[in-house]
Amino acid sequence: MAWQIGDKASFTKTIAESDIYLFAGITGDLNPMHVDEMAARASRFGGRIAHGMLGASLICTVLGMRLPGPGTIHVKQDLRFTAPVRPGDTLTAWVEVVDLGLDKGGARLRLKTWVTNQDGLTVVDGEAVVVPPGV
Amino acid sequence: MAWQIGDKASFTKTIAESDIYLFAGITGDLNPMHVDEMAARASRFGGRIAHGMLGASLICTVLGMRLPGPGTIHVKQDLRFTAPVRPGDTLTAWVEVVDLGLDKGGARLRLKTWVTNQDGLTVVDGEAVVVPPGV
Repeated sequence: MAWQIGDKASFTKTIAESDIYLFAGITGDLNPMHVDEMAARASRFGGRIAHGMLGASLICTVLGMRLPGPGTIHVKQDLRFTAPVRPGDTLTAWVEVVDLGLDKGGARLRLKTWVTNQDGLTVVDGEAVVVPPGV
Repeated sequence: MAWQIGDKASFTKTIAESDIYLFAGITGDLNPMHVDEMAARASRFGGRIAHGMLGASLICTVLGMRLPGPGTIHVKQDLRFTAPVRPGDTLTAWVEVVDLGLDKGGARLRLKTWVTNQDGLTVVDGEAVVVPPGV
């Protein structure tokens, strides 16, 4: 197996307003918290926030592009949304191998997955299970 | 509390090729399985598939738009990706209230969440925890 416990990778992207609007259009999630600045300003958030799943999706970018990389099959993803993401925030999604699945013949990797913003605050936390490429 | 155990809502959308390409651009997840028809055709999938998180994101559309609806705060989402989604598939995301969180003062709803395709096959399964609007 090409992976070791503790292997880590990340991907960083600044979340533009356009990302949020395209995500709203793709998913149909036009919750006012994402697309109505006046309503969002009057809410506990004080302004528009990104869809939680938009930030979380950067985790899949790392899994599918970097670790384990192209050909990975995403089996399971647990997510906790721990802080709001605002337009202009720079997010870094992290994945870290925590279990090689050797008890299952190495067929599945388990990874700790989380997303931080430019202040180091964790905005999404959770865990993934994937079938790595070539298995 | 305005919700009852068993309350259910859904949202249906046909996943266009453009949804997959925009999702790839937004997230940076250009895994060949999503954007390279030749590579995908040679894989176990036999052709391009949508990002798992794209189908899963329709769950958030139901939560944020229908049940519990606008103002909902998404706290937790567990996902299992159980079958591939292909361009042209018509997905229906479902949510169903399974716990009113009354032991926590009704502050949090727990919902069973799943996505089916046009053949009735479950492509995403899981569970959400949300703070409903007005709590």
